[in-house]
Amino acid sequence: MAGAIKVSKTHLVRTELDSLLAGLDIGDAVPAERELAVRFGVARETVRQALHELLVEGRIERRGRGTVVAKPKLVQPLSLRSYTEGAERMGRTPGRVLVSWDDVRADAEMATALGVRRGAKVMHLERVLLADGDRIGLESTYLTVARFGWLRESFDPATSLYAALRASGVEFGAALERIETALPSPREAALLGTTTAMPVLMLNRRTVDVADHPIELVRAIYRGDRVAFETFLADR
Amino acid sequence: MAGAIKVSKTHLVRTELDSLLAGLDIGDAVPAERELAVRFGVARETVRQALHELLVEGRIERRGRGTVVAKPKLVQPLSLRSYTEGAERMGRTPGRVLVSWDDVRADAEMATALGVRRGAKVMHLERVLLADGDRIGLESTYLTVARFGWLRESFDPATSLYAALRASGVEFGAALERIETALPSPREAALLGTTTAMPVLMLNRRTVDVADHPIELVRAIYRGDRVAFETFLADR
Repeated sequence: MAGAIKVSKTHLVRTELDSLLAGLDIGDAVPAERELAVRFGVARETVRQALHELLVEGRIERRGRGTVVAKPKLVQPLSLRSYTEGAERMGRTPGRVLVSWDDVRADAEMATALGVRRGAKVMHLERVLLADGDRIGLESTYLTVARFGWLRESFDPATSLYAALRASGVEFGAALERIETALPSPREAALLGTTTAMPVLMLNRRTVDVADHPIELVRAIYRGDRVAFETFLADR
Repeated sequence: MAGAIKVSKTHLVRTELDSLLAGLDIGDAVPAERELAVRFGVARETVRQALHELLVEGRIERRGRGTVVAKPKLVQPLSLRSYTEGAERMGRTPGRVLVSWDDVRADAEMATALGVRRGAKVMHLERVLLADGDRIGLESTYLTVARFGWLRESFDPATSLYAALRASGVEFGAALERIETALPSPREAALLGTTTAMPVLMLNRRTVDVADHPIELVRAIYRGDRVAFETFLADR
């Protein structure tokens, strides 16, 4: 029964921590693990487990050597709107940092999805997504050079890609989006300023225009402690 | 530069493993870590990291002491349909195991969401979701006793709740759904047959009927290695 007792203590500590956090403001310091263990009369390991859960949920975050109450997650509506519009809707300032912008050759799967022959040139644009200057996501976009090569001349990768595409006359029609969770690779964790133990939301999207012609393939990961998705479902 | 070299080796090993898996069938054994380290000429730790990523992605799974190629993830459409319908659409046999079915008192938030006064009786139905007998999710549903107390007399918790509600004349209207990632608590991990290090997809939903009256609050977690969500987005 040792297992059952441990679970129940974790649950108790979690409830205590939830009420403690409810009384604090964003940026307020969270008491240290040791202090909490004494206060709740439990082992430090039990407090550590509960704090780790809160960290992964984005309720608290590390700042220097301490821990503080985190800002609420950025809630992104699942829609054909861009990341930019979603962030602005939440009152956050969006930003993007270019990681790489290269040409790759389409493999069989990519060729089918983008409607080109295998081996055709595809631009791969990789950017870190920022909200109020914080790294919250990493986005890889694949666009065919044949249709979108002109972006190289005129597109500023620190700005919204969707806005640039719309300005050029592209009319977004529909997207099929798949949402999963994953752990970031060491490279991805480094680019996101997180660890390989912090789950991310992973999104794979194929977007077509109103004439059903492929626009892009996107593979994006979002820090699970910073981002949530939201969708409104109606009966059809 | 040690970090950069390690990242690049992990990436290399991952690419090698991807092509190895592409040549195997579901249920086939994956070579042991040690054997792979020798074959790729890298440290065992590098292979371990890549295998852990594949495990979290649900491409491989542990079976006894070995590792085998996993079944594809169950892809659940984001919709007002039930879990049952989603699973059946994928050719999987859905099932549910009752964990608990209790009355709780509505706190302020729950009371607002369910349209009852604070302290009103709310049924909490907690079930493990199965696909082909595998534990893939854990679902907590909250329904008011005032409107849905009759379920206690007639509802078999091993069957579809949505089907029972529809049969009683409830017409589903809309739902607002929030999708996040989290790590399971020790209790949740035990109920899902996974570990506290395996990310889950977490879904919070509020469902209303066609007259906009609240039906349920749902908090569900799905094993990240077994389930993906999919949604079709059209421009509005």
